[in-house]
Amino acid sequence: MRYRLTVEYDGTPFCGWQSQADGGAVQDALMRAIHLFCGEQVTVFGAGRTDTGVHARGQVAHIDLVSAPRPDKIRDGVNFHLKPLPIALIDVELAEDDFDARFSALARHYEYRIMSRRAPLTLDHERAWWVPQSLDVAAMDDAAKCLLGQHDFTTFRSSQCQAASPVRTLDRLDVEPRGDSIIITASARSFLHNQVRSLAGSLKRVGEGKWQKADLAQALAACDRAACATVAPSCGLTFMKVDYPAASVSKPK
Amino acid sequence: MRYRLTVEYDGTPFCGWQSQADGGAVQDALMRAIHLFCGEQVTVFGAGRTDTGVHARGQVAHIDLVSAPRPDKIRDGVNFHLKPLPIALIDVELAEDDFDARFSALARHYEYRIMSRRAPLTLDHERAWWVPQSLDVAAMDDAAKCLLGQHDFTTFRSSQCQAASPVRTLDRLDVEPRGDSIIITASARSFLHNQVRSLAGSLKRVGEGKWQKADLAQALAACDRAACATVAPSCGLTFMKVDYPAASVSKPK
Repeated sequence: MRYRLTVEYDGTPFCGWQSQADGGAVQDALMRAIHLFCGEQVTVFGAGRTDTGVHARGQVAHIDLVSAPRPDKIRDGVNFHLKPLPIALIDVELAEDDFDARFSALARHYEYRIMSRRAPLTLDHERAWWVPQSLDVAAMDDAAKCLLGQHDFTTFRSSQCQAASPVRTLDRLDVEPRGDSIIITASARSFLHNQVRSLAGSLKRVGEGKWQKADLAQALAACDRAACATVAPSCGLTFMKVDYPAASVSKPK
Repeated sequence: MRYRLTVEYDGTPFCGWQSQADGGAVQDALMRAIHLFCGEQVTVFGAGRTDTGVHARGQVAHIDLVSAPRPDKIRDGVNFHLKPLPIALIDVELAEDDFDARFSALARHYEYRIMSRRAPLTLDHERAWWVPQSLDVAAMDDAAKCLLGQHDFTTFRSSQCQAASPVRTLDRLDVEPRGDSIIITASARSFLHNQVRSLAGSLKRVGEGKWQKADLAQALAACDRAACATVAPSCGLTFMKVDYPAASVSKPK
């Protein structure tokens, strides 16, 4: 039986999503907890490979279990075995046999959070990027618009990125204030490695007034990693949600 | 020279605001950092004595410094010496000589945050009360209204409370959803010891359906600590803001 898992985690103590030899990844912790819950050794396939320190509110993964437990039993049982790690299954649903967390995804949504103030962060430590300068949010939002649509994002991807093509279609890139924070919302069918953090770092430069919108457009057009501003730190990034075709989940009766 | 400090802290590692013999309180940490900054031994007078584990976004305090540094120098210098503790001065302003963080306060504002879901908390661990049951927010908000106004709040104060009178005037008590959370907002000129957490614990009982509005009114009328529901945990509580007369601050030129 195939299941869709919605996973939340505090990325701070983990070396990212992707399984590591030392077992310190989110994927490793999930596989151990599932094994403790039902005795099955499974691979957990995730929708996105978040980096070390990146958080998730709505990472999605799929697993196959021969023992076919009820979805709510999986959620509560695996959460029990995940303790005290800061990873939790928010939701577990029965999925169609051909549902694939990675390949069925229609859109991925990320939020990047900046706190711009003189005082260091306390309650939001490891939950946002602390920027001591004040930032022009309207200028950042306006500049962001030149990145929308289909482009070669070579400037904004890690030199380690393994994707075959640097071309992606950015459907949303909004910068807006929310409470004491500045939130960058990025949506696309898929992203390149380090793309959102590269965009956030470059938008911050616009916010400081060091770059104009034209400089951002020029950096994009350069198709050169060296044209990117300093990549924003991982602690500000959260993987929020993945969209799938409505038919991919069979709701439990 | 007198100054008004606006203080933010993550209450988790501290034994509350109030100075302790072992130096583990927020007040102690501030006094040490101020001493390191300017060599003066001062008392930091706070607007409210938050308990162990209670957070603050806008605690207010006043201090007197003979050396009379510029407010922004105090903010940056004291923040430097507070590192790596999760306490920060958000703002420092010159205050009138008769400004008193505690006695000049016109209103105090608290937020109590509940996350009601089956999955344990990860990103919000120590930032909210995890309640695995679902809660009826509208019923909680409606019931809360019977506590507004001037009452004897003996039921909702700690047996250790040292206030001379149990009578307080509750100006606001709202319960509303915000994102994935339920936020209880409480405002009054002053609160009794454990009052907001006692109210939150009792409102949660209404949300579960175990109490009706009439039960809450009856608990209030009983004027008996034994009539209170279990006090809500400290990690969900944040001291948000204090209001003062407009004239109490002289803005630096």
